[in-house]
Amino acid sequence: MARKQRPIRSDIAWSMPDRIEVRGKDLPGEILGKLNLGDVAYLQLTGEMPTTEQSQVFNAIVITLVEHGITPSSLAARLTYAGAPESLQAAVAAGLCGLGTVFVGSMEGASRMLYEALEDADANVDLSVIAQRVVQEYRSRGEIIPGLGHPVHKPIDPRTPRLFEIAAENGMSGRYVELMQYIASAAEQASGKQLPVNATGAIGAICCELGFPWKIVRGFGVMARAIGLVGHILEESEQPMAVEIWQRVEDEATAHIRPQA
Amino acid sequence: MARKQRPIRSDIAWSMPDRIEVRGKDLPGEILGKLNLGDVAYLQLTGEMPTTEQSQVFNAIVITLVEHGITPSSLAARLTYAGAPESLQAAVAAGLCGLGTVFVGSMEGASRMLYEALEDADANVDLSVIAQRVVQEYRSRGEIIPGLGHPVHKPIDPRTPRLFEIAAENGMSGRYVELMQYIASAAEQASGKQLPVNATGAIGAICCELGFPWKIVRGFGVMARAIGLVGHILEESEQPMAVEIWQRVEDEATAHIRPQA
Amino acid sequence: MARKQRPIRSDIAWSMPDRIEVRGKDLPGEILGKLNLGDVAYLQLTGEMPTTEQSQVFNAIVITLVEHGITPSSLAARLTYAGAPESLQAAVAAGLCGLGTVFVGSMEGASRMLYEALEDADANVDLSVIAQRVVQEYRSRGEIIPGLGHPVHKPIDPRTPRLFEIAAENGMSGRYVELMQYIASAAEQASGKQLPVNATGAIGAICCELGFPWKIVRGFGVMARAIGLVGHILEESEQPMAVEIWQRVEDEATAHIRPQA
Amino acid sequence: MARKQRPIRSDIAWSMPDRIEVRGKDLPGEILGKLNLGDVAYLQLTGEMPTTEQSQVFNAIVITLVEHGITPSSLAARLTYAGAPESLQAAVAAGLCGLGTVFVGSMEGASRMLYEALEDADANVDLSVIAQRVVQEYRSRGEIIPGLGHPVHKPIDPRTPRLFEIAAENGMSGRYVELMQYIASAAEQASGKQLPVNATGAIGAICCELGFPWKIVRGFGVMARAIGLVGHILEESEQPMAVEIWQRVEDEATAHIRPQA
Repeated sequence: MARKQRPIRSDIAWSMPDRIEVRGKDLPGEILGKLNLGDVAYLQLTGEMPTTEQSQVFNAIVITLVEHGITPSSLAARLTYAGAPESLQAAVAAGLCGLGTVFVGSMEGASRMLYEALEDADANVDLSVIAQRVVQEYRSRGEIIPGLGHPVHKPIDPRTPRLFEIAAENGMSGRYVELMQYIASAAEQASGKQLPVNATGAIGAICCELGFPWKIVRGFGVMARAIGLVGHILEESEQPMAVEIWQRVEDEATAHIRPQA
Repeated sequence: MARKQRPIRSDIAWSMPDRIEVRGKDLPGEILGKLNLGDVAYLQLTGEMPTTEQSQVFNAIVITLVEHGITPSSLAARLTYAGAPESLQAAVAAGLCGLGTVFVGSMEGASRMLYEALEDADANVDLSVIAQRVVQEYRSRGEIIPGLGHPVHKPIDPRTPRLFEIAAENGMSGRYVELMQYIASAAEQASGKQLPVNATGAIGAICCELGFPWKIVRGFGVMARAIGLVGHILEESEQPMAVEIWQRVEDEATAHIRPQA
Repeated sequence: MARKQRPIRSDIAWSMPDRIEVRGKDLPGEILGKLNLGDVAYLQLTGEMPTTEQSQVFNAIVITLVEHGITPSSLAARLTYAGAPESLQAAVAAGLCGLGTVFVGSMEGASRMLYEALEDADANVDLSVIAQRVVQEYRSRGEIIPGLGHPVHKPIDPRTPRLFEIAAENGMSGRYVELMQYIASAAEQASGKQLPVNATGAIGAICCELGFPWKIVRGFGVMARAIGLVGHILEESEQPMAVEIWQRVEDEATAHIRPQA
Repeated sequence: MARKQRPIRSDIAWSMPDRIEVRGKDLPGEILGKLNLGDVAYLQLTGEMPTTEQSQVFNAIVITLVEHGITPSSLAARLTYAGAPESLQAAVAAGLCGLGTVFVGSMEGASRMLYEALEDADANVDLSVIAQRVVQEYRSRGEIIPGLGHPVHKPIDPRTPRLFEIAAENGMSGRYVELMQYIASAAEQASGKQLPVNATGAIGAICCELGFPWKIVRGFGVMARAIGLVGHILEESEQPMAVEIWQRVEDEATAHIRPQA
């Protein structure tokens, strides 16, 4: 008995000899020279042209995630480039592979938490009560609440107020942003620690305001960091550090078992 | 004898508890809400804020490379996501790994060819003579001239005139763009075939006008495609094709050796 | 205030001009020509030379995972190779990126389940009682019990009895193997379905017998599949399918939106 | 006009409900418990069961490449694991991405050089004459001859004599091994430097004796290193260094631009 085939279908883009369409727009005629890169990312993901307000807010979110200096991710890209300079794309790929639960996951965690706590943004509910319930649930499970506190940026993460300001200026500071802030207050009260909303919490909340599914929120970090990593690889090609890092680590790591010459 | 250590240094970004700087700009105060994503990519790569003209041209180049429908790269990302949906970043990484010599390499090849043929853009030389020499050299080595012709987009690649138009409107249609067009003419004459400048040739030439080193040109394709791939993964999560592709290929590929039930 | 540095240390291998040691063994003198590849993998992971019995069982486990025909992973590797044939390593990397929770995760899931249910393999406990408790817990959480049943290999997975036989012949069919089988029985009784131990369940159980931490069990699949993927890439270079797959999928996926010529 | 479909075909493996065949062998009945991992790799790549001699030599080659301590590749894997410990497979993938022209390429370079210099191993030609011609060609092009000399292993690479010994003991020290040694002598004479055959040169030559196409030789390094990287990730999970490396590098790299607290 033959397996029944299911259809294969994509609605993103198509090309013909004389025409290329992305999300229903003519690439040369309606996109090139008219949109910026952040707007095209928005179009690619949603199928809709962003309004001016959506453009402002979405660009700000992704830009926040482009670059944060020397990170495990940028080091992995540089070390990979040192071994395969002919494969710049594989160096970027190596750098992206580490954008998992430890560094980027809290952004999608915050979005998910907010959506699950407030399925209907228009519901007539008391956000401070919901926030207290969320905090209690995380604490009873012994889990860290995503999007709060930061090991370096204390007492507050300097990106958070600016991101919330941009959201507000563009009419996108709604109930998810409000709930995120209530959760921070409730967490501070429950723990006795300073736990302000960090950049990933702000981004997670604003992604809910924009209506993105939480599953794709990590993707904003991934696309942004790809840009940042190309910058690190360009610098590595001109002012390298990978081989020096390797040699220092090798010397130190095996000094205790290597016979000393 | 101890190895002498060399310094490790990066000039891209740094952060302190209350401040994050990227390329000497305060991220919250001078970048967020003020620049678009393409401008930040330009800043990340060059260390300079783009002029309005540079912003227009650079955004157009990168946007051209975001999305081109179903490709081996987008299929690799979708197939990877089917096996590891918890690692969106690794699915994007898998999709980037194939952006090598076959599909993206011609862009950097065109830039390199132009820079090597015309080291000084201001030199008082006859570009048509240079173009004929370049074409002869490639033909004598039996190599394909990068940036010319296209298997699908015939007779002309619809992106090329638009990209050249945007470059001209912004004062960036200089001698590298001119040389690329002379090379196309010389190649058509020498081969008797239609070989107009394709999108990768146009981008390669405009990257020379912008002054980017040819080694990093491939990186524009990599960063752009990372955005496109996040879009494909979002669609795959909602309207999957990977498992169906797998099952069809498995059925067909091994039908000749598999006992039929 | 300067951060206090912590030491960096690795105990796996070191090299000097005239000597290379891996896990305390001289590579040319004690390893090459004396061990097989599976034994070296065992040495690399445990720091110990395998006994004959450990060698037999460990080789069998890893070999089981080398090759399973056309899979999403082998297709991702082939599609990547089509775009970047100069980067064979990146094609293998792309193929590995999809070995996540869907296809390889159940192996580590089975090991983890067994270790958590039976912390002390020598404890005087009734395994059938433990098995029933484990099955009840998974069912009450609505989770799939790892290592049971198979969509293709019915009624039994032909690898399972052979793996258990090899374990028994080498004195490694202990209480974790027994518990895995009790869990299968309990699951069949509770669900009324046929749920025999599959290959990943057998491997998960045998990894417990060998004493490997559950966190590294997925790694056996990863190392094995790297071998398999090199085979697929060699075949792709001689008898390609990637471009044909791409073109078929592109044609079908966008037929509904593409103007028909 | 519809595109004509070409067939899709793979000859490596297939599975049915009660049977799994790899390269024409029944996996449970003819492979598990009978072959070691290196033999299965040989079978996967060639479609043939190795003879005892082929098994000895092939296992030795791949084993040589498993582990060489702290390398850029193992560091990239460890840094990736620090960010995404839930994706062990992506950490291995990141580590493999750097196995390009700088570290692994010389192995395939040596094989290619030998095959191109001696297409027919049985030809009645003077190998010392061929070697001198090869050396002259590389020197006139200003290229490095692959497989000679080593930055650390001086005066000789301790793996080379052992690999050649294993090849000889198994009747596989033929004309390609001989030619590689003639090339080393000719290069030493021409350059006045010590340039003995290193491990990648020995492996490249022995791969010719085994009859492998040069394009796949890099794959032996890739599959071997996947095993080594799993070992590094296991050690990283128990005795981490990635975060310490990151923090040290970040401190030093940006000290010149970061305001000092």
